[in-house]
Amino acid sequence: MLYFIGLGLGDAKDISVKGLEIVKKCERVYLESYTSILTCGQKQLEEVYGREVILADRDLVEQGSDVILDGATSADVAFLVVGDPFGATTHSDLVLRARERSIPTRFVHNASIINAVGCCGLQLYKFGETVSVPFWTDGWRPESFYDKIALNLEREFHTLCLLDIKVKEQTVENMMRGRKEYEPPRFMTTQQAAEQILAIARRRQSADTDAVAPLPIDQSTPCILVARIGADDQKLVYCTLGEAAEESMDMGRPLHSIVVPAKELHEVELESVNWLKLRQD
Amino acid sequence: MLYFIGLGLGDAKDISVKGLEIVKKCERVYLESYTSILTCGQKQLEEVYGREVILADRDLVEQGSDVILDGATSADVAFLVVGDPFGATTHSDLVLRARERSIPTRFVHNASIINAVGCCGLQLYKFGETVSVPFWTDGWRPESFYDKIALNLEREFHTLCLLDIKVKEQTVENMMRGRKEYEPPRFMTTQQAAEQILAIARRRQSADTDAVAPLPIDQSTPCILVARIGADDQKLVYCTLGEAAEESMDMGRPLHSIVVPAKELHEVELESVNWLKLRQD
Repeated sequence: MLYFIGLGLGDAKDISVKGLEIVKKCERVYLESYTSILTCGQKQLEEVYGREVILADRDLVEQGSDVILDGATSADVAFLVVGDPFGATTHSDLVLRARERSIPTRFVHNASIINAVGCCGLQLYKFGETVSVPFWTDGWRPESFYDKIALNLEREFHTLCLLDIKVKEQTVENMMRGRKEYEPPRFMTTQQAAEQILAIARRRQSADTDAVAPLPIDQSTPCILVARIGADDQKLVYCTLGEAAEESMDMGRPLHSIVVPAKELHEVELESVNWLKLRQD
Repeated sequence: MLYFIGLGLGDAKDISVKGLEIVKKCERVYLESYTSILTCGQKQLEEVYGREVILADRDLVEQGSDVILDGATSADVAFLVVGDPFGATTHSDLVLRARERSIPTRFVHNASIINAVGCCGLQLYKFGETVSVPFWTDGWRPESFYDKIALNLEREFHTLCLLDIKVKEQTVENMMRGRKEYEPPRFMTTQQAAEQILAIARRRQSADTDAVAPLPIDQSTPCILVARIGADDQKLVYCTLGEAAEESMDMGRPLHSIVVPAKELHEVELESVNWLKLRQD
């Protein structure tokens, strides 16, 4: 049996009682380590779980998945995922490969940012499409996330912006030389994301100086910055995109996300968001 | 301190390790019992948690919340919610009332149907607005959920349809006479929901016989029926709305939901959905 177990968002104790029982009895336990991170490390997980945990990087899961699956034909293997097991496409892929080999699978769900973001006080059912904000490079500056946020605003939906994570990435040079040397992990901050969003807004503004209608997104667009949701030191800040882009707006350790709320808020939403504002002042 | 603790979706062991530690140390523990249900009962919860749990119905939470809050000013009180604490507007309300009284609050997240529905194989970020399908009565047959599904289809989004729950409801007669007598709980089945959706499609078809464009929803519209997600006996069926509305399509015990997928699916989504189909044949 191959178990996919969600770990939730905070620390080692966010695993469910059911999930922990399974982890304890499995022959091998893998921890997916490249689409998200817990605020605690592998060591703390191993202490709480009382057993060894094998780190599974992208190569192992995407190219070497047979190693994981081989064990699961005859014994119980657990694949631990930060958040919920269905948070990332890669895991659906592993599920399909297990099914091809007739390996039975089971899932233990947990919180993911998709639902835990409700803690900012906005109603979950009013979120439109979730967007991913990727790290820009010199030659690659995609803008599709901006259009999706704008479209959600137009349709009166909130937008959850997930920020890029680079774990175990190679430089182009190292990749070309076949050197298995990796860059230090990078996690996009709310500040970097706000900068990228505003850079697009500025570019469009200058490209379209005759526009009558104002752009849907600018310095004054309200946003909620969220950091380390579910952890003891989670932080929520309600401000404008302009403020979010300032260097002084430090949200601390990863992971960060940004929520762009719809223009019109429900009474309870408004009260919740204002409470965030009050707490900051 | 007032703790809001998500219980997840399946049974008593879906609470997190952190959540259980808090439940054990709290002076009083309330279980919200009207927006959702676990597949296990209060008794099993009490056994696993090793303590008494007080059922909190709508009246207590919405009108008598002071009873809950009074205790939390001087001691630790837990408010247990099936799924994630932010699944229902009512709980946001309780959070705000606690804040008004300067009672510190803390949240322990868990899985909710909003993210666990990913187990059907569709990508979570491609879900549009979540809709609620209410039980129709003789005089009240709202159709807004149909329009939202149609709009999501048009925008190439999936739709999660949450089905109505009636717990501790009074008949109009009992309400008028002030009799505190309640109807047995009712949970909408996928069959009832599919019937209501198709009834709207039929009505619109006949109201608009000259229409050139076909209606976005009809008997042949594909859907995924989901029952008891996260429980050992969870059930997923991929079929058409016409098949879903047949009396023979029995999904068993509550809770049920329906997913209406976008017309175009990603390769991995298609493979997952086809696997559901294969498993049925």
